[in-house]
Amino acid sequence: MKIIRTSAAMQKWSRTATSPIVFVPTMGALHEGHMALVQRARKLAGKNGSVVFSIFVNPMQFGPKEDLSRYPRPFKRDATMCKEAGVDVIFHPIPDQIYPDGFSTAVDESSVSTSLCGASRTEHFRGVCTVVLKLFNIVHPDTAVFGLKDYQQCRVLQRMVRDLAVPVKMDFVETVRESDGLALSSRNRYLSPEERLQAPIIRKALLAARAAFRAGESSETSLTNIVLRDIRKATDARPDYISVVNGESLQPVKSAKANDVIAVAIFFGKTRLIDNIRLLHQRLRA
Amino acid sequence: MKIIRTSAAMQKWSRTATSPIVFVPTMGALHEGHMALVQRARKLAGKNGSVVFSIFVNPMQFGPKEDLSRYPRPFKRDATMCKEAGVDVIFHPIPDQIYPDGFSTAVDESSVSTSLCGASRTEHFRGVCTVVLKLFNIVHPDTAVFGLKDYQQCRVLQRMVRDLAVPVKMDFVETVRESDGLALSSRNRYLSPEERLQAPIIRKALLAARAAFRAGESSETSLTNIVLRDIRKATDARPDYISVVNGESLQPVKSAKANDVIAVAIFFGKTRLIDNIRLLHQRLRA
Repeated sequence: MKIIRTSAAMQKWSRTATSPIVFVPTMGALHEGHMALVQRARKLAGKNGSVVFSIFVNPMQFGPKEDLSRYPRPFKRDATMCKEAGVDVIFHPIPDQIYPDGFSTAVDESSVSTSLCGASRTEHFRGVCTVVLKLFNIVHPDTAVFGLKDYQQCRVLQRMVRDLAVPVKMDFVETVRESDGLALSSRNRYLSPEERLQAPIIRKALLAARAAFRAGESSETSLTNIVLRDIRKATDARPDYISVVNGESLQPVKSAKANDVIAVAIFFGKTRLIDNIRLLHQRLRA
Repeated sequence: MKIIRTSAAMQKWSRTATSPIVFVPTMGALHEGHMALVQRARKLAGKNGSVVFSIFVNPMQFGPKEDLSRYPRPFKRDATMCKEAGVDVIFHPIPDQIYPDGFSTAVDESSVSTSLCGASRTEHFRGVCTVVLKLFNIVHPDTAVFGLKDYQQCRVLQRMVRDLAVPVKMDFVETVRESDGLALSSRNRYLSPEERLQAPIIRKALLAARAAFRAGESSETSLTNIVLRDIRKATDARPDYISVVNGESLQPVKSAKANDVIAVAIFFGKTRLIDNIRLLHQRLRA
C-alpha cells in the first residue's frame, strides 16, 4: 500500500494506474462504516483495478464554531485498517496541497443542499462539493463510493456530478450500525457513556416512524411527532431537525410517499449525530 | 469534421480520440481572433492530435439586461470557417445538454473575478467558470486555448483550474486586431458606422498610456487620465471602467509596475467593448 502526500504525485500515479480506479474519500478516524465502503470499492475495482482511499479533514466543510480542531486524526491506526482491507493507495494531503495560498474558488449546489443539514450548516456543502470535485480531479477515479449515513451529502454530490458532467460514477453504500442500531460515526467517540446509552433511540424512533408509514400513516406532522416522541425519551437528546423530505430533491413534503426519507440531526451535549431512513427501502439510483 | 450535439456523444468521442485533445471553447460568431485560437490549437495538437471547438452561447454568463437573445448565431458560416481552419470536431450543444432541468450547481471564483468586468457584471464569471468547467468535463482536453482580449476571463479561469486541480493546461493567445487597432470581437458588428469609426480610440488610448509608463509615469491616476483624455475625444464613447491592475490578482494598484495591466470597458451606444494592455510585454505564464 502506497501513501501519497502531494496532489502532483497522486495525479501522476493515477495517470498510469490500471483501471478501474475506485475512490473512497473520507476524513479518517475510520470505523466499520468506512470499511464497508472499502469492501465495496475493492469489489468494484476487481483484481486488476485500484482502490484509492483519501484521508483529509477538510477545513472548508466545518463551520467556525464546529469541531475542526478536535476532529480525531488517528492516522497510523487508519493506515493499518486500510492496508488490511486491501486499499492500494492512501492519499493523505497536507491542507496546503488542497488549499494553496490565495485559494478563491468554490463549488456550490443551491437546491438539494439547502434543507436539512444545509439549513443550519450553511457553508458545509459548499466545502464538501469543492473538496470532492478537487479530489476527483486529483485522483481521477472511474467510480467513487460514499456512505448513505450522510444521505444529503450523497444527493448533493450526485447533483453536482450530474450538473457539471463530472466523469465519475457515484456508488452508495448502506449505513453500518452498532448492534443496538446506532449508526457508526467518527463523532460517536465524543459521546459520554450516558449519552452513548441513549443514542440508539435515534434508530428506534426512525424505525417506529417507518412502521407507521407502512401501516398507512403519511402525514408529515404525524411521522415527525412519532420520531419526536421517542427522541424525547432520551433526556440528553436535543433535536436539531426532524424532517420528512423527497428522497431526490430533499425538499420537505406534507404527505409522505414511497422513497421519501425521514432525516434527523440530534444533539447529545455538543455532539451532533445524523441518521435517516427511507420510507420504502429501494436501492438508490446512481 | 464532425459536428456533435450531445454531451454523451462528445464524452464518448473524447474517450477514444488520440491525444492530445486541444480545445477552443467559444460562443461562435467567429472572426479572425477565434481563427488565431484554432491555429494555435492545431499547432499544439500536431498531426495526430485533435482540435475540438465548441460553440455555445452560454445563458448563465449573460446578465438579465444583456444581449443574450440578440447575440449572433451564424452557425453555418462558423462551421465553414472551422472546417477550413482544420478543426476536427465542433461541439455545438443545445442549451438543455448543458443546463438540464433542475440544474443547481455553480462554480465561483471570488477574488480575481471581482474587479473590472466582475464589478458591473456580477454573475458573469460564475457563468463562465461553470460552463468552462463543465465543457472541460465533457471534452476532456489536454490543453484549452483562450484569447487574451478577455484578459480577466483568462486569469479567472486560470485561478479556477489551479484551485480545483483541473487536469487541463491553459494556453493564451494574443489579441487579434483590425488594421486600425480595434480588437476583434463578435460584438463589433453591433457598432454603427459612426461608432465603428471612433472605436479604435480605445487601442490608441491604451498605447498612449503604455508609452507614458515606459517614459517613467507610474501613477495610476495619471495613467488612467491619459486613457480617459483620449477616450473623451470619441463623442459616442462612455467609459464603464478604466483600471490599472496587478496582472495576476487583477486588484487595482496605485503605482504601476511591469506586468501590471490597464484594462478598459467602453460603451459605444449599447455596445460594450473591452480591451487591455500589459505595461511590459511579457508572455503570460500558464
